Amino acid sequence: MPTSTWNRHHILSLADFTPVEYDAVLQTAASFREVLSRRTKKVPTLQGQVVANLFFEPSTRTRSSFELAAKRLSADTLNFTSATSSMTKGETILDTAKTYLAMGCDIMVIRHTSAGVPNAVALEMDRLGERVSVLNAGDGQHEHPSQGLLDLFTICSLIDPLQPRLELLKDKKIAIVGDILHSRVARSNIWSLTASGAEVHLAAPPTLLPKLFAEYINDGEASGLDGRRKLFIHWHLEPALRDADFVMTLRLQKERMTAHLLPSLREYHQMFGITRSKLKWCKPNVKVLHPGPVNRGVEISSDLMDDPEFSLIQTQVTSGVAVRMALLYLIGSGKAV
Amino acid sequence: MPTSTWNRHHILSLADFTPVEYDAVLQTAASFREVLSRRTKKVPTLQGQVVANLFFEPSTRTRSSFELAAKRLSADTLNFTSATSSMTKGETILDTAKTYLAMGCDIMVIRHTSAGVPNAVALEMDRLGERVSVLNAGDGQHEHPSQGLLDLFTICSLIDPLQPRLELLKDKKIAIVGDILHSRVARSNIWSLTASGAEVHLAAPPTLLPKLFAEYINDGEASGLDGRRKLFIHWHLEPALRDADFVMTLRLQKERMTAHLLPSLREYHQMFGITRSKLKWCKPNVKVLHPGPVNRGVEISSDLMDDPEFSLIQTQVTSGVAVRMALLYLIGSGKAV
Amino acid sequence: MPTSTWNRHHILSLADFTPVEYDAVLQTAASFREVLSRRTKKVPTLQGQVVANLFFEPSTRTRSSFELAAKRLSADTLNFTSATSSMTKGETILDTAKTYLAMGCDIMVIRHTSAGVPNAVALEMDRLGERVSVLNAGDGQHEHPSQGLLDLFTICSLIDPLQPRLELLKDKKIAIVGDILHSRVARSNIWSLTASGAEVHLAAPPTLLPKLFAEYINDGEASGLDGRRKLFIHWHLEPALRDADFVMTLRLQKERMTAHLLPSLREYHQMFGITRSKLKWCKPNVKVLHPGPVNRGVEISSDLMDDPEFSLIQTQVTSGVAVRMALLYLIGSGKAV
Repeated sequence: MPTSTWNRHHILSLADFTPVEYDAVLQTAASFREVLSRRTKKVPTLQGQVVANLFFEPSTRTRSSFELAAKRLSADTLNFTSATSSMTKGETILDTAKTYLAMGCDIMVIRHTSAGVPNAVALEMDRLGERVSVLNAGDGQHEHPSQGLLDLFTICSLIDPLQPRLELLKDKKIAIVGDILHSRVARSNIWSLTASGAEVHLAAPPTLLPKLFAEYINDGEASGLDGRRKLFIHWHLEPALRDADFVMTLRLQKERMTAHLLPSLREYHQMFGITRSKLKWCKPNVKVLHPGPVNRGVEISSDLMDDPEFSLIQTQVTSGVAVRMALLYLIGSGKAV
Repeated sequence: MPTSTWNRHHILSLADFTPVEYDAVLQTAASFREVLSRRTKKVPTLQGQVVANLFFEPSTRTRSSFELAAKRLSADTLNFTSATSSMTKGETILDTAKTYLAMGCDIMVIRHTSAGVPNAVALEMDRLGERVSVLNAGDGQHEHPSQGLLDLFTICSLIDPLQPRLELLKDKKIAIVGDILHSRVARSNIWSLTASGAEVHLAAPPTLLPKLFAEYINDGEASGLDGRRKLFIHWHLEPALRDADFVMTLRLQKERMTAHLLPSLREYHQMFGITRSKLKWCKPNVKVLHPGPVNRGVEISSDLMDDPEFSLIQTQVTSGVAVRMALLYLIGSGKAV
Repeated sequence: MPTSTWNRHHILSLADFTPVEYDAVLQTAASFREVLSRRTKKVPTLQGQVVANLFFEPSTRTRSSFELAAKRLSADTLNFTSATSSMTKGETILDTAKTYLAMGCDIMVIRHTSAGVPNAVALEMDRLGERVSVLNAGDGQHEHPSQGLLDLFTICSLIDPLQPRLELLKDKKIAIVGDILHSRVARSNIWSLTASGAEVHLAAPPTLLPKLFAEYINDGEASGLDGRRKLFIHWHLEPALRDADFVMTLRLQKERMTAHLLPSLREYHQMFGITRSKLKWCKPNVKVLHPGPVNRGVEISSDLMDDPEFSLIQTQVTSGVAVRMALLYLIGSGKAV
């Protein structure tokens, strides 16, 4: 594991992540992936520590991934979901967090439908002078940093499994396709991928693009937003996919249809769904990612999703456990070993 | 524990269980029952392994039994229930299973309202060349093999606690009473009990019998269906109970009433409910089983259920943990020790 | 930990707790609080034992506290909540308890909306000659003994952190304010605090006082109910708070409003809500307790709740884990060490 010192206490956003921090996560995750390939997939690192999963928005996949990561570090876990919570009793979220703090939790993994909740909890913990760490497991349409990091780890590991590192993505072209507007996954990935020096191309219907981005677009295509981060925005799929090394599709919430942001799932699939024929625009060895769960035949064609030659979707899930072990380890032990 | 080699990778059905396999389960479970009688009821056998309980149909009893069995083998457990799942998000069941596979689960315990789901998952895992094992914890009206095995273990252990084995049931008469048509418990028990050489007598109202069976009936009673398996079907309780050694009652889903398959619970209890007076038809030391949860006063009279002289219901629950430890152990370690 | 012998097998009520028992809990909890201040907050005391949380009434806070206490004693835990239970299947509560008994649970922590359920389960377990212990985690409007004990521990620890003991409260004045009528927390606290020799003053609107108590009131104030227990009842806040050392506010269920027991939350806060100005009636170093979750601005003003100079609310939560570890330890090991 990296010998650099890890100073970050909470993981709330990738906006201010440094290259050194990205590399610390990537290298630590690589070590844990090795642990996961053993028959006994457990290390005693966080024994006696308590990781509380405070999920104010239900999620099986992410909660299970964090729970498993914590258990494999030998931490004890507590699960809180709003369905069985005292939220209905009128307590504030900060009160709930302070209750888990007072019980002696060491790390709080927080998911909430509202952007900023994990930040607010972290601020309050710091104000109180408490050592507890907060890990954002997805907040509204804001960020989902562990997803961004696992996507990064998945891509970098494909290029160099033994030493995944940020610089491997320099000059790669990566397309992010779909509902950019509502996607916290897209936000976190834009921060990490542009930080790596990769060219990031967003493709979405105008109704599913942030207004800020939409204004940058001229004739449906915009050039880099600033000198350092190479971000391009497209209203059509083809320019985003042309010669791309990696394509990330985003989950389409079916609620978008009822909000009149999309005419139909069929039309969306025709224009932005990833299929074999559209992949021909990309580099020959292009790989496709999706944060899951997938709407088969909408964001991606069903056969492509299951084709290990192209799909990294299962690898992402496996990476997720290794990356979350790395995050819990780095903030739990306070430093990389 | 048995020295024979265990080759079965998934446990989906008892239809093709061999006598050697039945005996391996019975003997392994007997060893674990001994462990459960100690103060520290835990063994390190599956340390570092992950058992995921994927319950697409809610069940407290069976889920807790599997969870406890896994914890007593020192495995880590993950619970998934459809109520808090991403099923509502449109993911397929195979996708969910593959997600848990990719997280690194070693054994998936699957319950689903539809018959065949555990088989479909197991087939897919094998097709992918994955080592993960699938254990059917009840699928629709198909099978519930761990229930069948725990019932078998309960009965055999009563005859010989130290060496429970299949041959002990040869020539015993066992009645299975109630809603045979909808019962996965009945299906699994019919396979195991007829395999033992016992005479199995089913008793149910015609509306709660499978059509296939109903056709075999002449004047409300049928003889053995084939030369080897001794299965008899009755429209009335008395011939099934006459000189029976064991009586298994099945849970009656109250939904059957609204489906017009039964006139009333009271009439059902009068005709097929097990009471002290009806037990006089059986052998004097007859024992009664029920998979639980019991509708008191419907399938069985309330006082009989609580009478340890007749009722094996609590013993079944205890057997359940030992048998599930045995199953997890046998498929988890790949061989009996 | 105390060297006295612990003989109580179930913890159902504080009505018959002896001073020796109170002191055993206080001293054992003090030992465990020391464990909780270590980095590795775990002891192997209950390894291999199973603690089942049977919560027929949902509660995140209390369930998490018991779960964490059990895990820190290295016990395995099983969670049962009625939402995902077979309660809908028509099983009785005793049947559910017996199922968990038969699975091999060593301690059952039971919460239920009806008073007396934990007692009924304990009686049945004793009748069956079973060694399993029952711990009442709140039953209807009856009792919540672990809350009463953690409040006692919180107060006594403030006076003498190293040797919290019952006699420290002799001649202290403690006010309990709010919905006494519906509060199981008040009931348990009245038993423990009056047992300590403290003067206990209840203050509530007449509609939220038990009828029995209301009859003792003359002109809105009553004197001690019997020679030994010093209990006083008031219809107004001021006489209860005058020179008080501790003020316990109770959670106000908002349902009380719809039941026409209260005119409005605002009026309730004005008359019985704890604020800085009302605290001036008390001793200068008065402390405020609340069992949580708090309706901010109703039972207590929001700024007071967050002021560590006055509020013990977070300390209560921390005490809760230590006290519940003590209870599980005392009934789990059968004796104090």
